[in-house]
Amino acid sequence: MTTPKAPLDWGTRYAARMAGMKASEIRELLKLLDQPDIISFAGGIPDPSLFPQTEIAEIYARICGDRARFDAALQYSVSEGDAELRQWIVGYMGERGVACTPENILITNGSQQALEFLGRMFLSPKDTALVEAPTYLGALQAFSAMEPAYDTLPAGQTNRTVGSYRDNAQAAGGAPKFAYVVPDFANPTGHTLTVSERKSLLQFARDLDIPVIEDSPYVALRYDGDEVPMVQALDCVDQGGIEASRVISLGSFSKVFTPGLRVGWICAPREVIGKLTLMKQASDLSNSAINQRVIATLATMRFDQQVAEGIAHYRVKRDAMLAALEQHMPDGVEWSKPEGGLFIWVTLPDGLDATALLQKSVETARVAYVPGHAFYADGSGRNTLRLSFSLPSVAAIKEGIAKLGDLLREAIE
Amino acid sequence: MTTPKAPLDWGTRYAARMAGMKASEIRELLKLLDQPDIISFAGGIPDPSLFPQTEIAEIYARICGDRARFDAALQYSVSEGDAELRQWIVGYMGERGVACTPENILITNGSQQALEFLGRMFLSPKDTALVEAPTYLGALQAFSAMEPAYDTLPAGQTNRTVGSYRDNAQAAGGAPKFAYVVPDFANPTGHTLTVSERKSLLQFARDLDIPVIEDSPYVALRYDGDEVPMVQALDCVDQGGIEASRVISLGSFSKVFTPGLRVGWICAPREVIGKLTLMKQASDLSNSAINQRVIATLATMRFDQQVAEGIAHYRVKRDAMLAALEQHMPDGVEWSKPEGGLFIWVTLPDGLDATALLQKSVETARVAYVPGHAFYADGSGRNTLRLSFSLPSVAAIKEGIAKLGDLLREAIE
Repeated sequence: MTTPKAPLDWGTRYAARMAGMKASEIRELLKLLDQPDIISFAGGIPDPSLFPQTEIAEIYARICGDRARFDAALQYSVSEGDAELRQWIVGYMGERGVACTPENILITNGSQQALEFLGRMFLSPKDTALVEAPTYLGALQAFSAMEPAYDTLPAGQTNRTVGSYRDNAQAAGGAPKFAYVVPDFANPTGHTLTVSERKSLLQFARDLDIPVIEDSPYVALRYDGDEVPMVQALDCVDQGGIEASRVISLGSFSKVFTPGLRVGWICAPREVIGKLTLMKQASDLSNSAINQRVIATLATMRFDQQVAEGIAHYRVKRDAMLAALEQHMPDGVEWSKPEGGLFIWVTLPDGLDATALLQKSVETARVAYVPGHAFYADGSGRNTLRLSFSLPSVAAIKEGIAKLGDLLREAIE
Repeated sequence: MTTPKAPLDWGTRYAARMAGMKASEIRELLKLLDQPDIISFAGGIPDPSLFPQTEIAEIYARICGDRARFDAALQYSVSEGDAELRQWIVGYMGERGVACTPENILITNGSQQALEFLGRMFLSPKDTALVEAPTYLGALQAFSAMEPAYDTLPAGQTNRTVGSYRDNAQAAGGAPKFAYVVPDFANPTGHTLTVSERKSLLQFARDLDIPVIEDSPYVALRYDGDEVPMVQALDCVDQGGIEASRVISLGSFSKVFTPGLRVGWICAPREVIGKLTLMKQASDLSNSAINQRVIATLATMRFDQQVAEGIAHYRVKRDAMLAALEQHMPDGVEWSKPEGGLFIWVTLPDGLDATALLQKSVETARVAYVPGHAFYADGSGRNTLRLSFSLPSVAAIKEGIAKLGDLLREAIE
């Protein structure tokens, strides 16, 4: 007979890295928002009315209607990803100044998996990740699982030297390992780096001799202004091609087509993709084969058209939110004017706390947003908040921003 | 102007854990097998003729034909997984003696992601993972990324004490962290643990006070003999329920329905699932929503029927392979007689090397298998090999085993 025993004390059995794993504020927040009368500017969720229903239905029907195609799409598949999809991405990257081959592309479960892989690839415990402040919350979650320290990338004029970054990283017990940026219509600020800022970033990374991770899920969704070259493209020009580049770029189909198929990619030198492919294989073997087939077919069929529809749709919402902010925000409140993407970043007067205000906002104004401090590695930015205009209707944007304006006016007075 | 710089020396920038990442022998092997005239007993791939084409086509059409359903299935979704799917799994586990709730279930990208998560959750570098010898290669790949040591679980009568496991782990620089087993129709051996072996394993894990990871992707595919209770079910009985159990079980829809949708699950105490859900969120946000909807609908509609069809189909192939082995293998070759699953394990006379023989087998006999040493954490087992009977036709099984028999007879003489 076996002898029962006191239950395991699980907390004492976890690996040390588990201590860095925290619940996401956005996620906990979104659980509160299941009530239909709340106007939510939280989340970074594409508008599902843009999902190409007829086309996706047809693609599934075509795959399922042909036994050989069906069998291949439902079977195990290679870790690198669907060959046709990688070839399409090669063309896409080439148009953006990054000449590459399928060996430079790995398919991932959205950009989030790419971030987790890159954190695991580069960060030993106590190493330093260099990030913007604020930066994408999901990147902080992915990196933090590796127990890193953080330092803030230089922005604008600064007297901080490259040596000071090295010294800080050494004081934290490791080395600076990479610079992570969302250069186009950043989550959460909506900010886009200029060409000169991108070149400065590259020079900084060269001086520190570290890789740059360029995360560009929103880059196709530009509503006005001119496209700015990818950091990776600038580096390829200087270095003579992707194999000598220090930039690793991430792309995603989640914002243009649909997040429900979980398809993103990493574009990097072959050496890096080779290692990441082993990681993919050990992590989950491969992406879903049929999902990659659907995305490859959609991309071939109507990427540009889908982008054009998304731009037309979201531009109206962005404009509505900017106009409503202009009309309703009290003095002392500032906000970003993004040329694309899904987000507007709001800075409240010093001393106001967007986290404390959120409860009141949800309870009385019935308006939700994401408090900005969640996007700071050091937890600062208490007086900031992120608004997304992608999901609510124009009417809801107007109503919600008016209510938020009233709430903030009251809080400021 | 920016200044170009010598390319990064990537190898010097990776985290220490990258050193444990190796290419899979199976994978490299499978690349050689793209020639149509090779009879492959490699791979552990379900027969796609069993994939329920009509049903899957109908489910996709139904989802895509209803705008609200379609929108939800193509949108971001919760990290825990589809609510209806988790509820179905609760029923499935309940029938197998593991009473649980949806809070005990996390959906993963197949069992491979579950293995990677559990390795990350428990193994700090130099900790010891206790595994069978041989064991599932994918588990070794997932765990090895965490830089562990390995020790071999007791099998049968042994004079090894629990203290010797602790001592070995301490000598390796860490602690024993979990026992990993594939108790039903194991990959690679086809072996099934008896009730008494399962109880011994539990007692061993209790004495060491470590968790047990029970990996059961093949459990539904039993061709003869009686079902053996899950290790988790035995522990739930002794401990009074899942919350006090030390067993974490893994399930998968890949072998019963299709691997192409990448859906598996972890069943464990709520505390463990809570932590794993944070890991899922940081790792890739969630599984594909539409894929989970398809699997949930299929499971509700025809799980038992699909299992019955799989059993009838694979039993014939297993019997054909066992009969062919009996007929064609020379003296001195031994093989397992599995009651289910996809694999037969072959032991050659001492001194024969299955890896060295493979090249000849592929080149002259045009027959492929997986050399057994890949499944040993210590690289032993050179005289073993794994055969899968799931994919080739009965005729190909007969022909391939006859050719393999000739090759082995020649090698032995």
